[in-house]
Amino acid sequence: MPHVSESRFRVRYAETDQMGVVYYANYLVWMEVGRTDFCKTLGFDYRDMEKEGAYMAVAEATCRYVLPARYDNAILVRTQLDRVNRKIVAFSYSILNEETRQLLAEGKTVHLTMGTDHKSRSLPAHYYELLSKSVNAT
Amino acid sequence: MPHVSESRFRVRYAETDQMGVVYYANYLVWMEVGRTDFCKTLGFDYRDMEKEGAYMAVAEATCRYVLPARYDNAILVRTQLDRVNRKIVAFSYSILNEETRQLLAEGKTVHLTMGTDHKSRSLPAHYYELLSKSVNAT
Amino acid sequence: MPHVSESRFRVRYAETDQMGVVYYANYLVWMEVGRTDFCKTLGFDYRDMEKEGAYMAVAEATCRYVLPARYDNAILVRTQLDRVNRKIVAFSYSILNEETRQLLAEGKTVHLTMGTDHKSRSLPAHYYELLSKSVNAT
Amino acid sequence: MPHVSESRFRVRYAETDQMGVVYYANYLVWMEVGRTDFCKTLGFDYRDMEKEGAYMAVAEATCRYVLPARYDNAILVRTQLDRVNRKIVAFSYSILNEETRQLLAEGKTVHLTMGTDHKSRSLPAHYYELLSKSVNAT
Repeated sequence: MPHVSESRFRVRYAETDQMGVVYYANYLVWMEVGRTDFCKTLGFDYRDMEKEGAYMAVAEATCRYVLPARYDNAILVRTQLDRVNRKIVAFSYSILNEETRQLLAEGKTVHLTMGTDHKSRSLPAHYYELLSKSVNAT
Repeated sequence: MPHVSESRFRVRYAETDQMGVVYYANYLVWMEVGRTDFCKTLGFDYRDMEKEGAYMAVAEATCRYVLPARYDNAILVRTQLDRVNRKIVAFSYSILNEETRQLLAEGKTVHLTMGTDHKSRSLPAHYYELLSKSVNAT
Repeated sequence: MPHVSESRFRVRYAETDQMGVVYYANYLVWMEVGRTDFCKTLGFDYRDMEKEGAYMAVAEATCRYVLPARYDNAILVRTQLDRVNRKIVAFSYSILNEETRQLLAEGKTVHLTMGTDHKSRSLPAHYYELLSKSVNAT
Repeated sequence: MPHVSESRFRVRYAETDQMGVVYYANYLVWMEVGRTDFCKTLGFDYRDMEKEGAYMAVAEATCRYVLPARYDNAILVRTQLDRVNRKIVAFSYSILNEETRQLLAEGKTVHLTMGTDHKSRSLPAHYYELLSKSVNAT
């Protein structure tokens, strides 16, 4: 069974646009909320990783939009780890309307491990071990 | 020669994050600035298309991040149309640092034409004709 | 005792800026989260009010920033209603770090009731009654 | 005559909300665009001030909303300096629709000079001199 974290929140008014639905860039913000919670379920805070000088810079992001999300909808983000090595971490996300259980969007992000100088560096061993135990084997 | 529109602006402080660079979701906002300007170079305002009840809902968005953008950097977004039919419009974008000419990011978006009811509808003929003349033949 | 609603969430990475703290405009987004929750504690959804054609347009917003909020901080927004009549609704907010209980910011917003045409209209009686029972008597 | 800087840009789709107008927090982003441009008209880049370890942290922000701004509107932000001493800088802003010349909003921000440690520090002399020559005498 893959390790999947779940994040829950409601759509903010600020996140809608004049089409009456959530603006498309905000789904990437929600994916980042998913990543933060994923790390917590493994027992570490991403903010601590940054304090140790290791950043996960986004190298690629993709989102496929299925159904619109609307103001005050209860959102559920399911996050899983697709891949990890000492330089690369990749996540995938399902974004659902928690009440209707309908899939709203699916996304993927690929990250490169960087130092505070924005140059490539290896993932600290401690975090690598925690992450590698939770990678989705599919 | 493909038709390419150019959008220019400076990175806003609001667009940075604690990593000291532009937050990744904001590149999707810049792509949308690119789309708006692309339509203007074809002689129409996207806002008028919406007033006629036709929306371009995003079905897919992808961004590959190459180099970080920083506060107050001069940004150049080059937008082109990859594909258009009566139901689907697809754009691609190159985002550059205008001073260094370095490529910062590349993106793609695919849009479905929708009515005010968020159901599929055909692109109004007038806009379809303008867009189809400017599609990138590659 | 004034009626006070409480909203809880964590600071998103997207909300930080290169100063390493939450960007100042985001506190206004958090106030709006507070307003949404305040309405729910009175037994109605603000989205339903909009569906009936009544909008609370912001006429004035003020925020005094006391201490910075940082990524992943647990935030508590305490919202109360300062004033309500058929045309005007005014809220005030305290934004705290839930763990340290320190005050991060204080804000106020004043709203005018508008119709879908963005012209002034009276607050529907049902909502006026609910709100007027919960106004802070201070 | 007070020194006034002018910033021009168009409303982004991302900045609208489901009310069909610009979301209220975005006016604070526009004020920050105004501040950046104000510094440039005095001959310095705010980013350089940060590189020297001096930050202008926002202590207070106020906005009065007069008329809604809409997608693709041409916006003009007029920024002036109301007050400056070694610890405090205060700006005021008029936000106009550039085509109709209608006032959309008026704002004020007060800033405290901080070091990279987020503790109070004096404004570097060079910047203080440039700013103090341009303060609005009213």
